Amino acid sequence: MAAAPSTSSSPVRVLGVDPGTRIAGYGVLDIQAGRPPKLVAHGAIRFPPSPLAARLEALFRELKAIIAQHSPGVLAIERVFYGKNFQSILKVGEARGVAVLAAQIAGLQIHEYTPAMIKKAATGNGNAQKEQVQRMMGRLLHMDGLPEPVDASDALAAAFCHGQRAWRANLLR
Amino acid sequence: MAAAPSTSSSPVRVLGVDPGTRIAGYGVLDIQAGRPPKLVAHGAIRFPPSPLAARLEALFRELKAIIAQHSPGVLAIERVFYGKNFQSILKVGEARGVAVLAAQIAGLQIHEYTPAMIKKAATGNGNAQKEQVQRMMGRLLHMDGLPEPVDASDALAAAFCHGQRAWRANLLR
Repeated sequence: MAAAPSTSSSPVRVLGVDPGTRIAGYGVLDIQAGRPPKLVAHGAIRFPPSPLAARLEALFRELKAIIAQHSPGVLAIERVFYGKNFQSILKVGEARGVAVLAAQIAGLQIHEYTPAMIKKAATGNGNAQKEQVQRMMGRLLHMDGLPEPVDASDALAAAFCHGQRAWRANLLR
Repeated sequence: MAAAPSTSSSPVRVLGVDPGTRIAGYGVLDIQAGRPPKLVAHGAIRFPPSPLAARLEALFRELKAIIAQHSPGVLAIERVFYGKNFQSILKVGEARGVAVLAAQIAGLQIHEYTPAMIKKAATGNGNAQKEQVQRMMGRLLHMDGLPEPVDASDALAAAFCHGQRAWRANLLR
């Protein structure tokens, strides 16, 4: 008996991360051409007010555990363009470096998107507020209520943005 | 036969790092109360122009190897206060996060010093130029010539700064 030809493409599992050293959001989506994205997991890692080095280690270990649990093939992460001040930019960089490292070591493809690209993918408006992104992500992923906290919503939006762009670029088969 | 009382304190091995994603300097010193610091190793890690994630992974792996080879107990690293522009601060943050992570995972104590503290320790002048720091480090460590490249010299100066301050704070016994 010949196998029936497959009518469905294989999904790409995307991990979105919104990195920080106080709280880091994450979201995992399965993206497949011609289907709505499927929510796999989302949440936030909160760090106690410990020295920076301990928080970076916790971020690294938590992301490693999330990657081990869900086996994503892609990391989608925001390209940062603004910050309150010098020290906050530096801290975002430190957390970002650790998040990218965790994904790179695990062999994920890494894709960066600007805040405007992510907001536009989620809401159609590149200048949308975080709350609007949160409402749209809840709706697009058929969630009961909003994705909480807002850090997880931002992470889901980054993953969603990758899915949309990969689909348009014909990278999903 | 009673053991003779020890007349020498045990040295503290300090790894200084000047992190970057194009080149990262490192220097290892043995610091002991009442003795001149002893040069153990110094050099620089150069990264080919590959994607950021690959350079961060190379930095992480090289620092892990240096730590495994020399077994330092302390990481001394500069606290960053300036940058050319937003993107350069972010990149310094990314490299710095990865360097601190490598030390933290290996169980090193982590100490940060401002650029002025490091320059003052090396030269007596908190506003010294990099070349002056380089000349003084070569002299203080009884090197034939200058520590090269300047990134390695900056890393040695950070380690030297830790040694001076630990000695003054009576942390070396």
